[in-house]
Amino acid sequence: MSVASKGEDSRQAILKTALSRARKTGLEGLTIGALADELQRSKSGVFAHFGSREDLQLAVLEEGARQFVDEVFVPALKEKRGLPRLRALFRYWLKRVLKLEDGGCLFVAGAAEFGNVEGPVKDKIAQLQEQWRKELTKAVQLTMDTSPHDEVDPAQLAFELFSLVLGVHHDARMFGPKDALRRGELAGERLLSAHFSPKK
Amino acid sequence: MSVASKGEDSRQAILKTALSRARKTGLEGLTIGALADELQRSKSGVFAHFGSREDLQLAVLEEGARQFVDEVFVPALKEKRGLPRLRALFRYWLKRVLKLEDGGCLFVAGAAEFGNVEGPVKDKIAQLQEQWRKELTKAVQLTMDTSPHDEVDPAQLAFELFSLVLGVHHDARMFGPKDALRRGELAGERLLSAHFSPKK
Repeated sequence: MSVASKGEDSRQAILKTALSRARKTGLEGLTIGALADELQRSKSGVFAHFGSREDLQLAVLEEGARQFVDEVFVPALKEKRGLPRLRALFRYWLKRVLKLEDGGCLFVAGAAEFGNVEGPVKDKIAQLQEQWRKELTKAVQLTMDTSPHDEVDPAQLAFELFSLVLGVHHDARMFGPKDALRRGELAGERLLSAHFSPKK
Repeated sequence: MSVASKGEDSRQAILKTALSRARKTGLEGLTIGALADELQRSKSGVFAHFGSREDLQLAVLEEGARQFVDEVFVPALKEKRGLPRLRALFRYWLKRVLKLEDGGCLFVAGAAEFGNVEGPVKDKIAQLQEQWRKELTKAVQLTMDTSPHDEVDPAQLAFELFSLVLGVHHDARMFGPKDALRRGELAGERLLSAHFSPKK
């Protein structure tokens, strides 16, 4: 193994722990000191991979987005283009936000933490959220191309699906996951059925 | 003025500043030290009113809920019971979450910060959110009593309205308030029109 790839493995191992920590304590709770303690490494060892706390936060956001793609987007691509794929996206997404044992969604928490704090971290969250919203809007557009539909503004429907996921994330943590999932599924199905027909 | 009421005024002044700060930095950013600095008081002066940081966080949540009632619930009560009042609740609520200059919603941020942190602060947020959800559900129920409607589960509709407000809160901070408001209003109106008729 080359020195470069060992360095890459080590960076990846730190990032994995950092992401898991950030989901539980928020991005603000992510300090290089606490992370070094958890990893039983020296602070300078962590600093060598991430020049600053902010660089670490940005890298954790990228890693979270990568994992989100693997858990939500990639499996949904196995479904037929159009309504089946849109439904699958929503289903895998709900599954992701209902992993209570992992902590909260990095992006939901990050948007609340950094929503009023201008700077590179907020910009990165907004950029990743915009990417995801565009993919979701594209999935709605593909559904319009393949299913009979009424007047749909794809970006509006993407906003409404996104809002439902925020509601499920919230209710699962505040009131428990069972009702949250049931309400989210029901609302999502109604929303899609209202715009697309026939049901199938 | 009695000593007791002077103490009450002082407590209220601290609370107002603390609430304003918490909306910007989150409840976790609310330390007695930082608050004392901002108020140009001694830490012990602040401690005298709030025995601990946690007591301060709990008091700020109560104060936030009180202000929410004043800004959203009380003005909506001026509208006719039923659909006009439900619409007004949603409208004033959107107005509240769109006050970007105030920071974020204490409860949206608090639910994200404390969603995975068991303890009195999470319990308080859950309790206040439950109260609000019950009021919202009651407003839906009153609308069902006064307007022709299809099959509505009031708690389900309350969840969906709540989710839309979370979506607007998010999008306003990440992508700007204009589209967020427009999408939220459109979705809310569609949701209510789908269940209640005639439109008026």
